Amino acid sequence: MNKVVLIPDSFKGTMSSIEICAVMEEQIRAYYPRAEVVKIPVADGGEGSVDAFLAAMGGQRVAVEATGPLGEPVPSFYGRMGDTAVIEMAAAAGLPLVGERRDILRATTYGVGELMLHAAQNGAKKLIVGLGGSATNDGGCGAAAACGIRFLDNGGRSFVPSGGSLHRVAGIDPTGLNPALRGVEIIAMCDIDNPLCGPFGASAVFGPQKGASEEDVKTLDDGLAHLAGVVAQQLGREVAALPGAGAAGGMGAGMVAFFGATLRAGIETVLETVGFSGRLQNADLVFTGEGKLDGQSLRGKVVVGVARAAQRAGVPVIAVVGDIGDEIEPVYQLGVSAVFSTNRVAVPFREAKQRARSDLALTMDTIMRCSRLWS
Amino acid sequence: MNKVVLIPDSFKGTMSSIEICAVMEEQIRAYYPRAEVVKIPVADGGEGSVDAFLAAMGGQRVAVEATGPLGEPVPSFYGRMGDTAVIEMAAAAGLPLVGERRDILRATTYGVGELMLHAAQNGAKKLIVGLGGSATNDGGCGAAAACGIRFLDNGGRSFVPSGGSLHRVAGIDPTGLNPALRGVEIIAMCDIDNPLCGPFGASAVFGPQKGASEEDVKTLDDGLAHLAGVVAQQLGREVAALPGAGAAGGMGAGMVAFFGATLRAGIETVLETVGFSGRLQNADLVFTGEGKLDGQSLRGKVVVGVARAAQRAGVPVIAVVGDIGDEIEPVYQLGVSAVFSTNRVAVPFREAKQRARSDLALTMDTIMRCSRLWS
Repeated sequence: MNKVVLIPDSFKGTMSSIEICAVMEEQIRAYYPRAEVVKIPVADGGEGSVDAFLAAMGGQRVAVEATGPLGEPVPSFYGRMGDTAVIEMAAAAGLPLVGERRDILRATTYGVGELMLHAAQNGAKKLIVGLGGSATNDGGCGAAAACGIRFLDNGGRSFVPSGGSLHRVAGIDPTGLNPALRGVEIIAMCDIDNPLCGPFGASAVFGPQKGASEEDVKTLDDGLAHLAGVVAQQLGREVAALPGAGAAGGMGAGMVAFFGATLRAGIETVLETVGFSGRLQNADLVFTGEGKLDGQSLRGKVVVGVARAAQRAGVPVIAVVGDIGDEIEPVYQLGVSAVFSTNRVAVPFREAKQRARSDLALTMDTIMRCSRLWS
Repeated sequence: MNKVVLIPDSFKGTMSSIEICAVMEEQIRAYYPRAEVVKIPVADGGEGSVDAFLAAMGGQRVAVEATGPLGEPVPSFYGRMGDTAVIEMAAAAGLPLVGERRDILRATTYGVGELMLHAAQNGAKKLIVGLGGSATNDGGCGAAAACGIRFLDNGGRSFVPSGGSLHRVAGIDPTGLNPALRGVEIIAMCDIDNPLCGPFGASAVFGPQKGASEEDVKTLDDGLAHLAGVVAQQLGREVAALPGAGAAGGMGAGMVAFFGATLRAGIETVLETVGFSGRLQNADLVFTGEGKLDGQSLRGKVVVGVARAAQRAGVPVIAVVGDIGDEIEPVYQLGVSAVFSTNRVAVPFREAKQRARSDLALTMDTIMRCSRLWS
């Protein structure tokens, strides 16, 4: 084996995609010390997305101060590679930043807008904004306000709406959008498909884990619905039913409504941004993987995106996953050569999780042994 | 792949070695329909051992009536292949034959001796007697008596000792051994190493599962110790400390003491009896396996025996096992090319067991996919 490409998703809650790449590389090098190993840890938009892109592409981590979710300044960052900037909203509006002080009615994405603006003002022509891990439910109004878009109440007074005051939005004035953002391509990256409102919307599904009471959920859901109405009427954009609009407290909707962003799955964004097909050249094998692979729910899956691209390039793909669900025939039809589970003992997940790292190493070792046996 | 040899142990309590061979063959044929598949399901001496040998070697299943464990006649059988007969003692003295009527003080191996004699009188020159799954604790006295050996009490009266009357054995007269058994090679096959008596002996370890009370265990253990003393004194054979003497209620000791049998592990017996090295000729690959493979406890393991023999022949070995224990490096040093666990989801054993068959099939399918990818 002369060249191997590693492009795994994280094993959610168990190992990051960066850690997985490291374990995979170590096991491959034990057998093929001179092989070129290309590592492309997949970002899903949540915490760690910037580091994943930096690991895959190189680039700089830019440190900046930004407004935190509760209005106080926080040390934040984004990644810069060429004329592309990668921002993870969790770095300025993330749940870990509020700790025990969760206040979803008041929390804002203002700092995310500041990061976007900073990148654009420093020459970025393309922004990738990772949605996920947020403490907010403001429909992206904070970020929009930070970039110059004005929200007006009934009395024509400008204010920065948060989850609890969305219902007060009567007018939106987009003309103040900072010129640095004009012509900048913006990709909002998220791996969930939830609509903005309703029982599967941002507030009902993700509100409670951000501290929303039942009453808060109603306030927030009504607020987002109201906002979507004003957006439709005044900006001419229908965002309420868009899959992914409900990501990160309605940030999905806001990115489309206020910034004209495109919503994309993590894997699509990664494949395009890193120039995956180019990096496949002369590769003997691709390793991908995720926490669970299930033949029934393949939409948006990393393994699927990777398999399609690799099949076009004629490079075989092996998937290494935590659990293998039933009926994975569709995965093979997509061109995956083989699927390995990392499970090596019959134990429940809470135990399997503790040993995930060494079990992944053993699984890679087994695959390398087979490759040596047969090739 | 032109020729594949399958030689798995059972996955204890989950799948027999015959079932495992069938699943493995089916998956191999899906990829290599014209390959020669040699199936050698490993017998461990317990129930199913005769069928395993018949599946591996061909031959006839001989149906005979024999004395059951509680003295009543039962339909029984043994296997005959060429001049070798394979007898599993469970077929005449097995726990399932007594059902709820467990009576370890009275249960006898008499029928096992009848099977041995029947085989020898019909021309068998080699007897393989599988020890395991017995309802008895008679030190093999019943089997010996059935073959003409006389046990005498203090008064010189002949009787057939059972577990509860072993202490009455005062003399042993081996001169009456049926001439048909003279010159017959006898292998007693068992996969346990327990000595005859004491805390790790037949009565203490296996007595309770055959219905022995605490008091019974003491009676039985004392009885076997007494028997070993008489054997040592009158037959000149020291059997008490022999590893495996405690197999099947002391049947291990009795086979050596009364019949001059050799105690051997299942895998050794199988490898020799089926002519394993000859059957490896021109094989591309050997599949072996067992329920759990652990680097720390390799003694007597099927995978180890198979690996040693295959390595001598230069044929690679893949082990497919239920659980992979920690530290399996020693297994690779023995020449095993790769070890696969059948676990594909993180669930406890009671759940994994239910899905063992399909998980084994999937694992074999994955291995075949790799072989197709690389060879």
